[in-house]
Formats: sequence, C-alpha cells, structure tokens
Amino acid sequence: MSWELRASDLPDLARGATLLGTGGGGDPYIGKMLVERVLGDGVITILDPDELTDDLFVIPTAQMGAPTVMIEKIPAGTEPTLALRTLEEHLGRRADATMPIECGGINSMIPLVVAAETGLPVVDADGMGRAFPELSMETFAVYGVHGSPLALAGERGEKVVIDTGDDDRQMEWLARGVTIRLGGVGHIAEYAMSGADVRRTAVPRTLSMALALGRAIREAREAKRSPFAAIADTLASTLYPHVRELFTGKVTDVERRTTEGFARGRARISAMDGDAGDFEIRFQNENLIAVHQGRVVAIVPDLICVVDHETAEPITTEGLRYGQRVRVLGISTPALMRTPEALAAFGPCAFGLDEPFVPVEEHRG
Amino acid sequence: MSWELRASDLPDLARGATLLGTGGGGDPYIGKMLVERVLGDGVITILDPDELTDDLFVIPTAQMGAPTVMIEKIPAGTEPTLALRTLEEHLGRRADATMPIECGGINSMIPLVVAAETGLPVVDADGMGRAFPELSMETFAVYGVHGSPLALAGERGEKVVIDTGDDDRQMEWLARGVTIRLGGVGHIAEYAMSGADVRRTAVPRTLSMALALGRAIREAREAKRSPFAAIADTLASTLYPHVRELFTGKVTDVERRTTEGFARGRARISAMDGDAGDFEIRFQNENLIAVHQGRVVAIVPDLICVVDHETAEPITTEGLRYGQRVRVLGISTPALMRTPEALAAFGPCAFGLDEPFVPVEEHRG
Repeated sequence: MSWELRASDLPDLARGATLLGTGGGGDPYIGKMLVERVLGDGVITILDPDELTDDLFVIPTAQMGAPTVMIEKIPAGTEPTLALRTLEEHLGRRADATMPIECGGINSMIPLVVAAETGLPVVDADGMGRAFPELSMETFAVYGVHGSPLALAGERGEKVVIDTGDDDRQMEWLARGVTIRLGGVGHIAEYAMSGADVRRTAVPRTLSMALALGRAIREAREAKRSPFAAIADTLASTLYPHVRELFTGKVTDVERRTTEGFARGRARISAMDGDAGDFEIRFQNENLIAVHQGRVVAIVPDLICVVDHETAEPITTEGLRYGQRVRVLGISTPALMRTPEALAAFGPCAFGLDEPFVPVEEHRG
Repeated sequence: MSWELRASDLPDLARGATLLGTGGGGDPYIGKMLVERVLGDGVITILDPDELTDDLFVIPTAQMGAPTVMIEKIPAGTEPTLALRTLEEHLGRRADATMPIECGGINSMIPLVVAAETGLPVVDADGMGRAFPELSMETFAVYGVHGSPLALAGERGEKVVIDTGDDDRQMEWLARGVTIRLGGVGHIAEYAMSGADVRRTAVPRTLSMALALGRAIREAREAKRSPFAAIADTLASTLYPHVRELFTGKVTDVERRTTEGFARGRARISAMDGDAGDFEIRFQNENLIAVHQGRVVAIVPDLICVVDHETAEPITTEGLRYGQRVRVLGISTPALMRTPEALAAFGPCAFGLDEPFVPVEEHRG
C-alpha cells in the first residue's frame, strides 16, 4: 500500500537505511539533513511497487562517490534533481516517479530530496537491496534493465550524459572517471524503467523496511528492550529473515585508503575478553567479507553490518574508529539477489574474492 | 573561394598539416589513411570562411588523446561521425558543415573523414591555428564561442555528452577523464557555432595553407630546390609570415612520458659540429618552448617545428628519435592568437611556463 513519509520519519529511516547499507551507502546524518532542508512540513508519497501501473515512468536518482569523500563534500542539494532533469531532457520524457538504486544513509535519501523538490512520488524499492560500490551491481541490470543512458550532475552545474548501450560495467567505468574529476562525488539519474520493469527487477519495499528497522531499534531502546531482538523480529517477516550475530568485540585496527574513486580497506575486531580470536572485515565502500579465526562467516551479497554493541546504531565503514565496541550482524538477502546471474554481478567473484558464496544462515557458527 | 579536395591532395595536406601541428596534432600517415579509406575517388567540398552564410550551422570534429596512444590505437573510422551525430541529436539540429578544431596530421583529417562519410562540406579554418594539447585552448573560446556541449564517442559505440556551460577548462578536464578511461583516445564534436561565429573567432584558411605548404615542400624536393625556401615563400603571403631557422643538429636525447592523458617530455638537439651549444625543446603533446644556450628563442603560441634537415619532412614529438638530423623552425602566428586574452588561454602561462611571450620574429638570433 502506498504511504506518506514526513520529516519526523527521517531519523528512523536514516538509521534503518544505514543498517541496510552494510557499511556503505553514505552518511545518515548528511542524508537526513539534505531531505529536511527541502521537505519542511510537507509529505512525500511512497508508492508500493505492486500498485504501479505498467507504463509508469520511473527514473531512479542517487549520489555516487567514495564515502570518504562524500562526508567531506556536502552537496548543494540541487544536483540530484539536475541529474533527473538532464536525463528527462535527453530521453524526451518526464518521470512519473523516482526511486533509490540502493539502500543507505545517503542513497535512500537522495530520491526523497528529489521528491521534495519536484513533487514526484518515490517507489518503495531499489536495485541493490543493500548498498554496493558499483553502478552495474543492480538487480535491475541482472534482470535486463540497463543503466544507460545515465545523467550525471556536478556541484558547479556540470551535466554529463553517458550512453554505453547494454554495457553497464563500461557505464560505471566512465561515470566513475567523471565523478573522480568532479572531486570524488557526483549525482546521477540512471536505470530509467517502467512500472512493470520495477516489479520484475527491483528488490521491493526496502524503504518501508528501513523505516520499520530504524523505528524498532529506537522503540526498543526507549523501552529498555534489546534492539537486537527488535531487529530480528522486524526482519523475520521480510525477504531478509535470517539474522546472525557474527562477533562482538572492540575495533583494534582500521586500514582505509581512497583509490580509484573507492574507499577500500579492512577492519580488525578483537574479543573484549581476548579469548575468541581475531575477526576481520574487508570492504570496498561496503563490507564484503567477514572472517573469524580464518573462516569466512559471511560474504557478499549477504549483509555484514557493524553496529554499536549496546544501542545497535549502525556504523559505516568511514565511521569505524579504534576502540569502538561493536557487534557484527550477518543478514540474509532475498532470493533474487542469490541467483547465479545475480552472484555473477555482485557475488564474491565480482569483487575478486576467491571464496564461494555461502548463505549466512548456512555457515557453521 | 570554396574548392574541392581529392584523395590525391591528401599526402601534401598531411605533410603541411603536420608541420602546422608543431609536434602534435597526430600522425600524418594514420590521418591520411583514415580519409583515403572512406573517400575513394570522391571529392570533399571545402568552404571558404568568408563565403559562409551567417546562420550556417557548423559542428567541428576531432580526435582527442595522447599522441603516444593515438599511434598505437587506430580508430575504426566511424567514431568521429558518431560524435557529430550524438551532438546533433543532443542539440536537436543537423550540422550544415564540419570544421577542424586544430591543425595536425590527425586533426586536419578527422573532419574530412566525417565529410566523406556524411557528404557534409568542411570549413577552411580551425580554432587553434596550430595544435594545442587542451580542448579549451581555442580561439573560438577566446572570442566567446564555448565548447559545451561536447559529444564524445568511443570505439565500442560509447556516447558521452558533457555540458559545463561557459567553463571550457572544466569541459576539457571531464572529457580528458573520459578519454583516459576509453583507453587514451576519444573522438569529439564540440564548439558548435554559426557561420558568423566562424568568421569572428576562427583562424581562417589553415586547411588550404597546409595543402599549399605540403605541396610546396614536395615540388621543391622534386625540382631539387630548397624546401626551406619553399616554406618561407609559401608562408610570406599568409597570416604566418615570419619563418626563422632556430637550430640545425642531431637529436641526442628524448625524454617522453604519458601522464594524465598527455605526452610530456623534452628533446635535446646538438650541433653536428659540436660548436653551437645545446638546444632543447620541451613539449606537452606539442612543442612549447625552444631554448638555445639557456636563452628562449621561440615560445608558445608561436610554432616550433622540427623537420628533417634535408627534406623538411615534419617530425612529430612521438616521432622524435635519437640520431635524427633535424632543423628547427620558428614560425610566427596570426595576430588573433597573440592578443592578451589569447595568450591567457594558450600562451606560456597557460602551460606553467614562467617565460613571457616574445614573438619569434623579435627574438635576437
């Protein structure tokens, strides 16, 4: 069912979206602020994917860049709508709605900024069901909707349109090159598609799920209940039913470098009692693999979420700091993200990892 | 007066254009071959700029990239026309003619490839009056016609449109980034303008001058006359009247590296009798400055042309080899390339050179 989103929902949505961002997808504080600035006391209509007419014309919008740069370089706020308008002009057709391409503190919010500015509704779905570092890593692409043409807008009004036909990896490669030259952050509109395409290719209801997660965590804290139980309860009835606590400990080392437009690195977490052996997470913008005592315990595309060990507040890869006490959760992803064609696009081998994909619920604890 | 160009003109045109390319502008053999492949026994109409109607719509076409890569990566030949068509589609208007953006072995030829493929005429003018390494270094831009929107085509059919408004340096920066990611070479259409704009901003008749130069050099060789006297005679009645022999010697060192999409380096030339001291040229795709015994003897935007010491065959920066016996010519550029606003765009300071511009005819020999 379609519903209305208000400014008062944004803190919960940001929290839940950041959890689903699995370390990436951008900073929740910045994302929330960008929407608040334009929404005021207005409302945004969120469309349920099952209720879209077949020929509704949807243009997703997002920010691209390295999270390490995204937190330094706050957008003016008008760039995502400029990207949308540039793609509309290029295609000669106005959008009926926008949509996220991924879940995350920024990228669940950017379509809301566009909606607040333009009055367009937002579709409750996305193309990653989490966050991934590259524009080609979309269920949209896996199931036949291509990203080109893509429109990219820069903070000084630069407009770039990239068309690589069916080659979404080449689109990512060229758009990343432009984004690097824009200083590390760009705003994009891409994967224009019909309502029928959304139903066929998108991960449904990730905005409402993010909002429900963020709200459940907050309400549990307020009621002095376990936010971890609240997360598990909330996810039980979704397409992400399995939650596993992978490790609890203290961040003892973070290695992070921004190369080729991405934030890459690893974090080491040590048990507080010193007994349970070292735990390591490797990331490229998002967390990709979690290894405990030499054994893989969760791997992309399943979610590896680092959260505060008490409050369950999600921590992004660029927010990781020495000494933080954290829990690491593994969350199962929907079936449409685990097919062989989906794994070819954003499974371990797409990141150069040799380890095979094993669902998080099947790893031996 | 307008005239017709045939395949039999191409060797002379390539030679003359390469001389005017002042070390850059691409390899004449490849340029000639690209035109020959599509022209056959057809003709190309070359329009005199003075005869253009005010509202004629001109879209210049070119190749961009590092010469060191351009000689390794031969284009399919269809990319320049794809760039033109992409810009036409973006602007919603068909071109009446195309035009070079610079002189050079490749870039005097690319518009001829487009002309042979599409039947469009080519305007006898360009925007550099020589070759320069960056897309913003155009008399077009200096006198108020901006490069945006620019269309860029890649060898796998990639199409990119870049619009940076009035900021031609940002256009260059972004287009260079895309070109690097296309493997070092891209094909472009940019600086769309009217016939009135051409007359106001372009360096006129550089195609016919290149053809006349190439022909004069060949005919002098055939008649056993001095090709150097032929060059001077040909230029005497043009906007480039001063020719000065700067040095004669043997190439004794070439340092060349491809960085950030450009070929940068220096060449040292030593007198064959060992008496006249060392002579050095520094280049970024094109020759920028010539220094003899510590004194500047020619500097950008004047032309510094390295040619074979006997045949006067021009040698590009990527063609420089140890042991070549060469003469170095300094040639004066037209007045519209030496105004303060022109020097700000492509004079010494635009290349980070501290030396002031002094016209080649005013240097003490």
